[in-house]
Amino acid sequence: MKEDDILLTIKSVIGEKYIGDDCAYIKELGLVVTQDSLVEDIHFLKKYMSPYQLGYKSGMVNISDISASGGIPKYMSVALSLPKDISTEFVREFYQGLSETLNGIEIIGGDITGSDKIMVSITLIGIDKDRHISSRANAKSGQVIVTSGVHGSSAAGLKLLMKGKRDYENPLIKSHLMPVAQIKFGSNISKNINEDYAMMDTSDGLADALFKIAKASNKTLIVDFSKIIYDKTLKTNFPDEYENLILYGGEDYQIIATVPEYLAKSLNLNIIGKVEPKSEYFVKIKNMLNGEKIIDNLNNCYNHFETV
Amino acid sequence: MKEDDILLTIKSVIGEKYIGDDCAYIKELGLVVTQDSLVEDIHFLKKYMSPYQLGYKSGMVNISDISASGGIPKYMSVALSLPKDISTEFVREFYQGLSETLNGIEIIGGDITGSDKIMVSITLIGIDKDRHISSRANAKSGQVIVTSGVHGSSAAGLKLLMKGKRDYENPLIKSHLMPVAQIKFGSNISKNINEDYAMMDTSDGLADALFKIAKASNKTLIVDFSKIIYDKTLKTNFPDEYENLILYGGEDYQIIATVPEYLAKSLNLNIIGKVEPKSEYFVKIKNMLNGEKIIDNLNNCYNHFETV
Repeated sequence: MKEDDILLTIKSVIGEKYIGDDCAYIKELGLVVTQDSLVEDIHFLKKYMSPYQLGYKSGMVNISDISASGGIPKYMSVALSLPKDISTEFVREFYQGLSETLNGIEIIGGDITGSDKIMVSITLIGIDKDRHISSRANAKSGQVIVTSGVHGSSAAGLKLLMKGKRDYENPLIKSHLMPVAQIKFGSNISKNINEDYAMMDTSDGLADALFKIAKASNKTLIVDFSKIIYDKTLKTNFPDEYENLILYGGEDYQIIATVPEYLAKSLNLNIIGKVEPKSEYFVKIKNMLNGEKIIDNLNNCYNHFETV
Repeated sequence: MKEDDILLTIKSVIGEKYIGDDCAYIKELGLVVTQDSLVEDIHFLKKYMSPYQLGYKSGMVNISDISASGGIPKYMSVALSLPKDISTEFVREFYQGLSETLNGIEIIGGDITGSDKIMVSITLIGIDKDRHISSRANAKSGQVIVTSGVHGSSAAGLKLLMKGKRDYENPLIKSHLMPVAQIKFGSNISKNINEDYAMMDTSDGLADALFKIAKASNKTLIVDFSKIIYDKTLKTNFPDEYENLILYGGEDYQIIATVPEYLAKSLNLNIIGKVEPKSEYFVKIKNMLNGEKIIDNLNNCYNHFETV
C-alpha cells in the first residue's frame, strides 16, 4: 500500500481540513504543529548513523517543517521506542545530538516504549507570532521560486555511505547524517512577506516539492536548472547522475518558496524560477543536459522505502 | 534498560522542567500536550485486537491523559508506521475506530512511514480554558482520594483473551480492547476545583498512580480497599488474583484525583482514601484480605513489556 493510497483512505474517513501541508496551522491558537517519525531500517541504518547523529537529525527534520511553515519552533515532544537491550549510552548520545538542535526550543515531554527496532516520533509545536504562515497551495502567478541552498547532497552522501565511505567531514555525507534546518531562511520570508505564498522543505526532494506546490496551487512552475545550486563535488563524484540527484534526491531539508520578486531581491535570495498560470503541465525544468524535463507526476520521486 | 533509567538519563541531558506528569502544561500558551505510542507486540497483538479497536484505543489513551490533566482535548496529530503489506481496509478501520473517540477533537495531521511492525504515536493538544490544570506533585494533606470507576477490568480482560476467550461483549475483555477515557470526570473536577490538586490516569495501574502521586507530592496516601469499585465478574473469574488485578492491573484508563472533601461530596465522587502528611511509607492499602499492604516502590507494578 502506497502513502498516497493511505492518505486517500484517511481523507475519506476524517475529511481533509488539515491535510495538505507538512505542518498544521491552528489559526485560532496561533500554532503550527508537525510530527515526523524516523524508523530504523526505513529512514536510517544503525551501521551508518551514530545515536548522536540520529538525535540531531530527528530534531532537524521537525525543525525544518516548522521553519518551512514560516513559524517559530518552540515546544518539542519526543516519543522513543527502543529495543530492550538498548544502552544508557545510546539514550544519552541521542539526547545530546537532539539538544544540539534546540536553540531555545523546550522539550516538554513525550513517551518511552519498547519495540523491536528503534523508532523516534517527534512532535514540534511552533507559534505564528508576527509571521505570515505559508501553505503549499498558496503559490501565485508572477511570484518567483527561491531556494535556501544546495540540493542533492544528502542522497549523494547516502550513496557514498552505501559504497562504504565513512568520511564524516565529507560535505555530502555530513549533509545526509546531520542536515541543518533552514530556520533563518524560513523566518526571513515569513516575517517580511505581505502576501500569501507557498513554502515547504525538500525532505522528499526538490522535484517533489516543486510538483506538490504546483499541484496544490494549480499553477505551473518553470525552473531554470542552471540556477539551482549544488555542492561542487556532486558532479565529480556522480558525473552521470548528478542531475537526478539534484532533482530527486531527498533529505536535503532545504526550503523552497514562491515569493514576490522584489522580496527575493531585497532579501538577496537565490531565484531558480517562476510561477505561471497553469498550463498543460505542472513543472518544467529548463536548461538540463538534454534540454528540458516535464514533471507531471511523482513517479520518479524520492521514496524512503527504496532508499535504504 | 528500564524506563526509569532512560528517564534519568534524559533528565541528565535536558533537565526536568517538564518531566513528571503525563501531560506537559505550557502555561504561557494555555496548552496541555501529551504523546503516547502503541507498538505491535508490546502494547497489542494483532490476533487479539482489530484495526478498529486499535484506532479506538489509540485515541482513548491520549484523551485519557489530557482529561487527567484537567484540560479539554482539542487537536490530534497521528503518526502511523505500517508494514508495506498493510491493507487499505486496515487503515480505514483504524481511522473509523479513532474517529469514534473524537467528539469534536480535530485531527490536524501527522505522519505515515514504513516499519516492520505497526506503530501508532499520537500527540494530543488540549487547552486549559477555565480549567485548573492538575499535577501529580500537587496532592495536599487533608484532601480525599477519588476515582472515576472500576479497576482491574482491563488486565483481567487481557488474561481472558490470553486464555482464548473471544467474547467481545464481556465487560472485562471490552474494557481491555476498548477502554473509555474518563473525560467528564476530569473535566468536572478541573472546572470546579479552587485549589491545587493531583490527578492522573491509571494507565499503569491503580497502585502505580497512587504511588506516583504520593512520591511526587511527598505525601502518604491511605486507601481503603473496600471502597475501591470493580466489576463483579472480576472476583468470580479470578478469585485468587482479583486484589492484585485491582491494584496492579494496567490500562483501565480510570482517573484518580486528590480533592477537597466538600468537592468530592458535592460532585458525588467515589472516595477511596485520604492524603496525609508523609509518614514512613508512601501508600497504605487497608482492608485487604490479608490485612493491609504498604506500597513503597514500583516493583510490582504493571509492565507493558511483560504483559503481552
